[in-house]
Amino acid sequence: MAIILGDIQYGKAESRLVRIVRDTPRHEIRDLNVTTALRGPFQNAYLEGDQSNVLPTDTQKNTAYAFAKSKGITSPEAFGLELAHHFVHDVDPVEGARIEVEEYAWERAVVDGAEHDHTWLRKGQEVRTAAITVDATGEYVIGGLKDLVLLKSTGSEFTGFLKDEYTTLPEEKDRIMATALQAQWRFAPTAGQSLDDIDFEAVYPEIKAIMVKHFATLHSLALQQTLWAMGKAVLEAFDFIAEVRLKAPNKHHFTYDIGRFGIENKQEVFWAADRPYGLIEAQVTRDDAPDAGEAWRFSAGLA
Amino acid sequence: MAIILGDIQYGKAESRLVRIVRDTPRHEIRDLNVTTALRGPFQNAYLEGDQSNVLPTDTQKNTAYAFAKSKGITSPEAFGLELAHHFVHDVDPVEGARIEVEEYAWERAVVDGAEHDHTWLRKGQEVRTAAITVDATGEYVIGGLKDLVLLKSTGSEFTGFLKDEYTTLPEEKDRIMATALQAQWRFAPTAGQSLDDIDFEAVYPEIKAIMVKHFATLHSLALQQTLWAMGKAVLEAFDFIAEVRLKAPNKHHFTYDIGRFGIENKQEVFWAADRPYGLIEAQVTRDDAPDAGEAWRFSAGLA
Amino acid sequence: MAIILGDIQYGKAESRLVRIVRDTPRHEIRDLNVTTALRGPFQNAYLEGDQSNVLPTDTQKNTAYAFAKSKGITSPEAFGLELAHHFVHDVDPVEGARIEVEEYAWERAVVDGAEHDHTWLRKGQEVRTAAITVDATGEYVIGGLKDLVLLKSTGSEFTGFLKDEYTTLPEEKDRIMATALQAQWRFAPTAGQSLDDIDFEAVYPEIKAIMVKHFATLHSLALQQTLWAMGKAVLEAFDFIAEVRLKAPNKHHFTYDIGRFGIENKQEVFWAADRPYGLIEAQVTRDDAPDAGEAWRFSAGLA
Amino acid sequence: MAIILGDIQYGKAESRLVRIVRDTPRHEIRDLNVTTALRGPFQNAYLEGDQSNVLPTDTQKNTAYAFAKSKGITSPEAFGLELAHHFVHDVDPVEGARIEVEEYAWERAVVDGAEHDHTWLRKGQEVRTAAITVDATGEYVIGGLKDLVLLKSTGSEFTGFLKDEYTTLPEEKDRIMATALQAQWRFAPTAGQSLDDIDFEAVYPEIKAIMVKHFATLHSLALQQTLWAMGKAVLEAFDFIAEVRLKAPNKHHFTYDIGRFGIENKQEVFWAADRPYGLIEAQVTRDDAPDAGEAWRFSAGLA
Repeated sequence: MAIILGDIQYGKAESRLVRIVRDTPRHEIRDLNVTTALRGPFQNAYLEGDQSNVLPTDTQKNTAYAFAKSKGITSPEAFGLELAHHFVHDVDPVEGARIEVEEYAWERAVVDGAEHDHTWLRKGQEVRTAAITVDATGEYVIGGLKDLVLLKSTGSEFTGFLKDEYTTLPEEKDRIMATALQAQWRFAPTAGQSLDDIDFEAVYPEIKAIMVKHFATLHSLALQQTLWAMGKAVLEAFDFIAEVRLKAPNKHHFTYDIGRFGIENKQEVFWAADRPYGLIEAQVTRDDAPDAGEAWRFSAGLA
Repeated sequence: MAIILGDIQYGKAESRLVRIVRDTPRHEIRDLNVTTALRGPFQNAYLEGDQSNVLPTDTQKNTAYAFAKSKGITSPEAFGLELAHHFVHDVDPVEGARIEVEEYAWERAVVDGAEHDHTWLRKGQEVRTAAITVDATGEYVIGGLKDLVLLKSTGSEFTGFLKDEYTTLPEEKDRIMATALQAQWRFAPTAGQSLDDIDFEAVYPEIKAIMVKHFATLHSLALQQTLWAMGKAVLEAFDFIAEVRLKAPNKHHFTYDIGRFGIENKQEVFWAADRPYGLIEAQVTRDDAPDAGEAWRFSAGLA
Repeated sequence: MAIILGDIQYGKAESRLVRIVRDTPRHEIRDLNVTTALRGPFQNAYLEGDQSNVLPTDTQKNTAYAFAKSKGITSPEAFGLELAHHFVHDVDPVEGARIEVEEYAWERAVVDGAEHDHTWLRKGQEVRTAAITVDATGEYVIGGLKDLVLLKSTGSEFTGFLKDEYTTLPEEKDRIMATALQAQWRFAPTAGQSLDDIDFEAVYPEIKAIMVKHFATLHSLALQQTLWAMGKAVLEAFDFIAEVRLKAPNKHHFTYDIGRFGIENKQEVFWAADRPYGLIEAQVTRDDAPDAGEAWRFSAGLA
Repeated sequence: MAIILGDIQYGKAESRLVRIVRDTPRHEIRDLNVTTALRGPFQNAYLEGDQSNVLPTDTQKNTAYAFAKSKGITSPEAFGLELAHHFVHDVDPVEGARIEVEEYAWERAVVDGAEHDHTWLRKGQEVRTAAITVDATGEYVIGGLKDLVLLKSTGSEFTGFLKDEYTTLPEEKDRIMATALQAQWRFAPTAGQSLDDIDFEAVYPEIKAIMVKHFATLHSLALQQTLWAMGKAVLEAFDFIAEVRLKAPNKHHFTYDIGRFGIENKQEVFWAADRPYGLIEAQVTRDDAPDAGEAWRFSAGLA
């Protein structure tokens, strides 16, 4: 029996990078949180403290900021691909790279009815995410979002469930359904298409709109059903998306018992609870989806 | 020498209360975080453990939820006044009440181009705040907001400052200015006016718009100057606002030195730092403002 | 009617400063979060953007790091006094300074039964706090702590309270009492004593021990009573402490109803709730305490 | 091409559960955060909203609280196994269960030199973790910890690393090394042993001590080397642990440049940065480790 190293990777997490494009008086902003991680023959750094193959995490950070100017940021996905290509192709011992990006949205300040050229308000809604992996097995791009907080005040029920000796939950025919959606979708170019052909910027708002629409319009018998409807609709809309993974906390809104004070509560007054919360997960996929390869493996974040 | 009690208050903090109005198919939502605190002859609870004058914090919570239906929520300020009046006037030993409210904004889901009747996305931007005090000395209402994150990519400089032996900061003629604004404004009805005459719902978006406008349009020689401009403009717009208090972290965006890699950075690539941050405070007031009384004293929050 | 500036201050918040003393092989560590704020004739920075009196917040930060070496850190209180003295006495236009410090405790790693010379584990318990103000009216020092999480599993009840139409809380003869204590104590040197005579390092653990002792040993009829006992005991122990201010969330632990499953719960299984929570406040003071002056006014933190 | 469901699971996350043992005057406390998730034939809940196989997440929560009394809590690992066995064996359609537990440590209050019987201070240091999976393929138990914040003020260097055109980092012969360690270890009973034979309570503090010891005593040429030493030592100490997975942010402490003020900084004054941070990962394993099966797959947390 010997003790050996398994998977390793190292990198720089959470470089907060803001890019202003100011070629015209109407500036543009991209606000990113960039995490990079490298894979390759770094075993001796672990086993013996030999750094000769180790590109410092500080260098990875420098590279991200340099590329923000030299390559530009057209989308989190494309920016991640640029960085990953560089590390794998230009830095000799590196064999694989994992880039994870969060993007925070801003909306233009409106002054006297007009959008301002160089002032923004942080939008504050969902965070856009991307996770890119490049290595000898291929190139993998995952788009996504998190913390998209959705609520519907009717059109949701939860009935007919399994009951055992520990079940006390009453059935509900009309309830608030709320979640903070986390969704990730894996891009898989179709025949004759490459990742470069995908317009990540155009796809993102459409996916978000599709998810919001199905959350809103499906009369939901369970959050599970809503997730399936969301994921399925995304796959139906984009043939270059192979699968969608969803995580949705069931943010419970409990009807507050004010009947004790002679006041009727017809699903109008709720206590919004913090913890615990239901947590529903679903993966929705094509039955002929190409293999996910390294797409989902070995996140470089602290999570 | 004796040891005595000074100021005391107790209450229930952070009751998360969601109110749905569903009288028509187009529902409305108000999403609040309510803190209540009572003042009065509760000394014996401290000195001897005698609770006979102590209305439980659980009861205060029940009352907030009951009032969400029986009184309704037309604004955080008005709801706070309702609660404060009740505690002071209807519960015998209570002499003063402090109510603090946070409100989280939602925007309607847009489905196929139309606003949805009963589905919302958490807006996620700033938090609206209110702090109401009612006691024997009067009634005080403070409106406000926090976490309004603003950024301008030009139109800001910082030069001509005092220098001492520890000063190393270079002057900057063109920089990013960004903040997460916290502002509070004290309502003071004018002659012949009462608090009930003020349309808190109409005032709030106007104040926010004024602040955003001045942040955007003032060529700023310092964040201090921007705060003054914001506060002054609010007072000029509303004669029933007596003072504005502002706290603004200077969220530093440092130009990243990519010149080391032969890449010019003309204020285009920045590192957004977390800590430390500058912190600028200003109180802007009328010289004839009525006394603030208990308005600002003894917050009931954990802060 | 004119619009005027009220109170102003500006500074650098949350400089994370770690000081290692390594004069011998057995190193020492102090881990601080330092906030500085200046007061004085800075009106023109607000009114006109004139920075000629404004010492940059960056300089304030530099000063804190320089003083960590040149003056050393014997206690958060003494370090704050050094900084405040410097700003007020050495920087010409500055008239007042407010320094706020948090300190994070570390404990030495234990290796094979012995304390290690230069390795520590973050202790993680309460945060020690200090708030120092120096201006023309005097010098004020407040010590404190926050987030000291305490729990007792018996020896607490809540009965005999006031009841109104919204009261549904049952009386409890035996309950968990838990809090995350925030306490601040104002130092007031006695006759013939100066602030320099007070051994802040020796006092801090004694105050903490006193508070823990009274939390533990008092059979509590209410959290209010416990706070009074804590504050009173501190004043009785130290004649150079003039007052103690306490804020204590009542971290509710609700007995979980497992009787529904035929399992008796004799105060053994609890749900620890997040929000809402009771919030109890008390100020305990000497009746002959010297005036608090500027001690408590105008915190420089974001809170 | 059809769209199909992939992996699914659902459950109740973050039930905050406190268990007091009070059979004698000296009480004991266990403070857990329990997440449960179920796997099995729940497809129709997603596809059609049919809940007939769905045990409500509320029931899962009830079960956790009931078991805290009826089964007791001897360790997070054993408690997780109890819950997982129940769901898989006692609830008919359930095929697999994933239980994740966090445990928060408390230390007894010391009053006049003696440990108190029923009062504790939250210890606040690392969080203990456990992840248990039971399904048709077997039973898997992972122990762990997170947020163990360690710092050494010497005995660490970083030199001899790879340099490319974006490398600006200077070599450091003596630096602070600090991290907030996350570690997980997979239990794999040896021949003739079962999971029930492992004393999880005894193992946990020993593993922590081993990790702290190697962090402290290894002269570190890189955080990678330290992680390897930690993981290897754990495997050498316990033959029933098959692998250790480590994630360690490199919490940068930058030497503050006070030389600009004529003050020498011999590794004594540091700025503790928040973001970005290095992030180093390692898996250390036996070359004959039994297959991990479902141990690491499909966490039930929000991460």
